[in-house]
Amino acid sequence: MMQPYFILDENAQYYECGFSCDNAIVVRVEDTRFFITDSRYTLEAKQFCNKHTEVIDSNDFIQSLLGIVSRLKLKQIVFNPQELNVAMYEEILSSLSAIKCELISKPNFHQQLRICKSEKEIALIATSQKLNKQAFKAFAKHIAKILKQAPSEKELHYQAKQILSDFGKYDLSFDPIVGINENGAKPHALPSNQCVLKKNGILLFDAGIQYKRYCSDMTRTAAVGKDIHFSKRQKFKNKLHSKIYDIVLKAQEKTISKARSGMSGKEIDALARAEIEKGGYGKYFVHSTGHGVGLDIHELPRISRLSEDRIEDNMVFSIEPGIYLPNEFGVRIEDLVVMKNGRAEIL
Amino acid sequence: MMQPYFILDENAQYYECGFSCDNAIVVRVEDTRFFITDSRYTLEAKQFCNKHTEVIDSNDFIQSLLGIVSRLKLKQIVFNPQELNVAMYEEILSSLSAIKCELISKPNFHQQLRICKSEKEIALIATSQKLNKQAFKAFAKHIAKILKQAPSEKELHYQAKQILSDFGKYDLSFDPIVGINENGAKPHALPSNQCVLKKNGILLFDAGIQYKRYCSDMTRTAAVGKDIHFSKRQKFKNKLHSKIYDIVLKAQEKTISKARSGMSGKEIDALARAEIEKGGYGKYFVHSTGHGVGLDIHELPRISRLSEDRIEDNMVFSIEPGIYLPNEFGVRIEDLVVMKNGRAEIL
Repeated sequence: MMQPYFILDENAQYYECGFSCDNAIVVRVEDTRFFITDSRYTLEAKQFCNKHTEVIDSNDFIQSLLGIVSRLKLKQIVFNPQELNVAMYEEILSSLSAIKCELISKPNFHQQLRICKSEKEIALIATSQKLNKQAFKAFAKHIAKILKQAPSEKELHYQAKQILSDFGKYDLSFDPIVGINENGAKPHALPSNQCVLKKNGILLFDAGIQYKRYCSDMTRTAAVGKDIHFSKRQKFKNKLHSKIYDIVLKAQEKTISKARSGMSGKEIDALARAEIEKGGYGKYFVHSTGHGVGLDIHELPRISRLSEDRIEDNMVFSIEPGIYLPNEFGVRIEDLVVMKNGRAEIL
Repeated sequence: MMQPYFILDENAQYYECGFSCDNAIVVRVEDTRFFITDSRYTLEAKQFCNKHTEVIDSNDFIQSLLGIVSRLKLKQIVFNPQELNVAMYEEILSSLSAIKCELISKPNFHQQLRICKSEKEIALIATSQKLNKQAFKAFAKHIAKILKQAPSEKELHYQAKQILSDFGKYDLSFDPIVGINENGAKPHALPSNQCVLKKNGILLFDAGIQYKRYCSDMTRTAAVGKDIHFSKRQKFKNKLHSKIYDIVLKAQEKTISKARSGMSGKEIDALARAEIEKGGYGKYFVHSTGHGVGLDIHELPRISRLSEDRIEDNMVFSIEPGIYLPNEFGVRIEDLVVMKNGRAEIL
């Protein structure tokens, strides 16, 4: 028997009910979902929620939650302490203890139950990534056309968002990263007006879109010649660019070919890290090897140094090693994979 | 003597330090701000934070917070229970109680201390609204040009975002609302492909941009003829459009002219509500009359039915009454005002 729970996160609510909005609590008890929302949203909620969901029009969500708990005589209810703020928690805690229902804190429990994807979800992520790849191609074509004008990071960033969204058709899964030369070594720097793209430069581009709310995510690092493309086979005139690129590419491809179901997240992370250390740049690989992708752009499993997450078939995650040489440039190469028959397949 | 506090909200951090990033805690003790962040951001934090701020590079924020508390022998520290999640709260609570420092919960305390704006802030909001008004004009011109093609809400919504951002130059203060005819009566409906703009229609447009992080916010409802404009003087062919518009306009202008420093938020709200009730449409005015605007798009003071917030000079807020006739259309007219010499001046 599953423990009843409530959730506030919109993606978790969408997963349960097939609909979400920015002001709701969803309660799950066995097969039934209760979608508690205010009158602005009840019409659409009733129209779009799945058949397992009962929509409750409420101007006091905690009272409505309490009503469900007492009507169904629940003795315990699970919540995620990372999504509930202290003010709401204290109100819920005191109301529930008055009717002798215990609040059970389970960090990140809903991402945990979404960690293995259904075939339908995998197909949606695959479509999302396919559209994303098309946008990468269109963006490369666009850059080639304007290269002579030496576009700035800021201009490219804005144009990337237009192309990725197919001019308003798709939401993005995150704010894309466009890093030229030394800015590619600061993965979190804001796009700058000063940094412009020129021949013999190096461009790091990390982007994703949403298709039916499922995220995609890809990173390519490209040589800027007369032309530009985002395939993995790049040719750099600069020797150091070329050397670093080859190490990252090898690490990325080797990790994908050696990843197996049954490994832990940290074992997969170690595959990438070992290659980069062998190349002599271990201390410049400053982040995790990957992260789960689904409705959230960052979800479980974690593919990091400390991750004990057990990798199983039907999990979807990124493999994205990188090397960042401060004040020079950065290289990252990222694909999404799905585990199938024990191995990682690129989406 | 002020109580020490810590804040997580980016706008609150920017207000204190002149810089913010998406992973930091700011601690304020007397005149000193401690900006605790990780190594990705310390370089920029040191470059951009004001002179009252000490930047602390940390890979364990709670330990760093604890370090400050014990070094300065703080006995109490204030936090906002609406911005702290339960997981972090419990960790901080147990660490602090071990060193006998009390956590004091003060809902929304930082918005409260920002409720009156400095002259500099008022000037920034005024510039933001000026740019916003220019974008409204440019958007009207654009619509006039494409009106024959019967653009959909979704198309207009995307084009509005381009024009408002000045093609990537400014961030928006919220996702703009473009409501055509009956969709204007659902202020929270998503932009639709089905709803198209045609002659004799009615268009509700609510939008704002950010200038140096300060928000603007304006709503206009426009008659669609051969042409379109977003001034407050509109001419509708449809009698009901015309009647409803006049009631809302009168309510909005009367509220602005009668608002006084010293009133409560609910007294100002009542000014608008009384006019709309007099017109016979009280039950179709389904939201508050206004809200404070600053770094946050919604902040204090609240101008609502229940608000006890005392209005003072230098507060900035919206006045935006509306009437929404389900399945027909909606009218809302919104300006920002600043209280000066006891009266409301339109920004």
